[in-house]
Amino acid sequence: MLGEFALIDRIIARLGDAAAHDLIVPPGDDAAAWRTGPGIAVATIDALVEGTHWRTDTMAYGDVGWRAVTANVSDLAAMGAEPQYLLIAMTLGPAFTVDDLDALVEGLAESCRLHGVRVAGGDIVRGPATAISIAAYGKIETGTADAPLLRRSRARAGDFVAVSGTPGASAAGLAVIEAGRAAEVGVEMLLLAHRRPVARVALGRAAAASGIRCAMDVSDGLMQDLGHIAVASEVGIELAAASLPLHPAAVDALGASAALDLALGGGEDFELVLTGPRAALVALDTPEVPVTLIGRVVAEHPGEVIVWGEDGEAYEPPRRGWDQTRDSGERRP
Amino acid sequence: MLGEFALIDRIIARLGDAAAHDLIVPPGDDAAAWRTGPGIAVATIDALVEGTHWRTDTMAYGDVGWRAVTANVSDLAAMGAEPQYLLIAMTLGPAFTVDDLDALVEGLAESCRLHGVRVAGGDIVRGPATAISIAAYGKIETGTADAPLLRRSRARAGDFVAVSGTPGASAAGLAVIEAGRAAEVGVEMLLLAHRRPVARVALGRAAAASGIRCAMDVSDGLMQDLGHIAVASEVGIELAAASLPLHPAAVDALGASAALDLALGGGEDFELVLTGPRAALVALDTPEVPVTLIGRVVAEHPGEVIVWGEDGEAYEPPRRGWDQTRDSGERRP
Repeated sequence: MLGEFALIDRIIARLGDAAAHDLIVPPGDDAAAWRTGPGIAVATIDALVEGTHWRTDTMAYGDVGWRAVTANVSDLAAMGAEPQYLLIAMTLGPAFTVDDLDALVEGLAESCRLHGVRVAGGDIVRGPATAISIAAYGKIETGTADAPLLRRSRARAGDFVAVSGTPGASAAGLAVIEAGRAAEVGVEMLLLAHRRPVARVALGRAAAASGIRCAMDVSDGLMQDLGHIAVASEVGIELAAASLPLHPAAVDALGASAALDLALGGGEDFELVLTGPRAALVALDTPEVPVTLIGRVVAEHPGEVIVWGEDGEAYEPPRRGWDQTRDSGERRP
Repeated sequence: MLGEFALIDRIIARLGDAAAHDLIVPPGDDAAAWRTGPGIAVATIDALVEGTHWRTDTMAYGDVGWRAVTANVSDLAAMGAEPQYLLIAMTLGPAFTVDDLDALVEGLAESCRLHGVRVAGGDIVRGPATAISIAAYGKIETGTADAPLLRRSRARAGDFVAVSGTPGASAAGLAVIEAGRAAEVGVEMLLLAHRRPVARVALGRAAAASGIRCAMDVSDGLMQDLGHIAVASEVGIELAAASLPLHPAAVDALGASAALDLALGGGEDFELVLTGPRAALVALDTPEVPVTLIGRVVAEHPGEVIVWGEDGEAYEPPRRGWDQTRDSGERRP
């Protein structure tokens, strides 16, 4: 393997225009620096570790790089922020090769370009396992006292609940891969949802601009993430199972029942779930990024999420998301 | 071990006033958010991995937490920035206990308080090895076009070179520990330099305010880090071995020759090395944080650092710092 500084030069070269060369201090000094104006800075950090967050048999390094960027940008999207810069700390495991690095960086760069963010700096070290930590910075330009931010704590009884896209598609893609069915016709969109998810940046900004004040990205599953909103906002949330926008390919490949469970319990789609006035939510729906009403915020059962089945009974999905500190296996439905 | 959310609650509680509870969006949402004004944002990220950056037999988890914060704050100090917020991603290895976590967080919090930074958010995951990545965020308030930033690329022939404190003290502390001499009288300050290093925040800000434009923190050793300045600035650097401010305890414990080699090749002191006009550098010297002139910037041998010994010959220290991607062992002299 190359030395630290040769690796950094190689990474910066391969990032191309995904590296922020025009900063006051671009990548390569003790820290990066850029000008700020009056407004709000939004910042988040996420760590992905091989074996915990991905396995080399279900995901190529290009997909890992793509996903690492998407996961962080998604946290900014879920605040209504405009993503700007990433700082990337890479830990290279013993078996990690320069070819692996090139593939990872290519995936990083592609996701950066799609999401309109650039790499401002980083760190690279050796360790017993390959891992990648990304800190993402974004901004909200505002002069108003009521910051146009999307919070977990701002759901109010009477709000409607909406979700973008087709939650569960990523988990369905992983299920297809694990069942050895990745070569089947008709599952391509599920594989793409798993390997190349897209963060809902434009939707988050449009929602915040339209006056919506509560959203989250679906990273641990709809039930669990809506549970965070219910707890933080001290409200109850009720969903109608029949209204959940299942991916047609997930229904075809796995059946309606499994597709429903994956929509409720499967994470990593990076869709946004939002609460607010019905008209404001409906106005966010576009052909490119569908936004579907799936439930209501209620004053009853604060902190709890209830899913009503078509039979009029409360439906309990088999699994409510995934806790990264309890389970050392790959995320799975 | 507790679940993810119980761990996060525990960490936030134990951070106390080292967590930034007064942000627009404090720790606990998708991302943190704070107000910005006109000026410059400065940001950096560093990863520390058990086995690569520390060993449990030479450093307690409280020291690891302290050092992780210091290393990041030091990168902001080396830019002349005012440190503000940290984002912390922790990977917990299989043997890591709640007691270990409490100790690590206590060290983080102590270093945060000393350096005037606060934790704005984080992430916690499980993995095959304990690791900690910190992104640090600071600011420089300026309305001028010539940003008061300390860069690697701004050394000019004719500048003097100065260093704060006593570089090599941290490496001397590690050498004492590894030799089984940590209980000896007289080595206490070396142990402290290794386990509880302090970033030179006030010095960095004072230097930038006084018009100095070139500095770096000594994280990989004086020779290697001055080499970065020499390359980035396309200048040569010449040091006088006799002028290096060796720590008296390092000389006493290890001898003058070893202390000199550690001053040139030992990293992790987080001292600042600066270049600029003689008078401006001398004016930075204080009883609390001594600043010592150690050499000159020259037009000759661009990219190279030469150390002149007392015998008038160029001195080649046995080791020029440490490359994190080549060597999987602990940093050592």
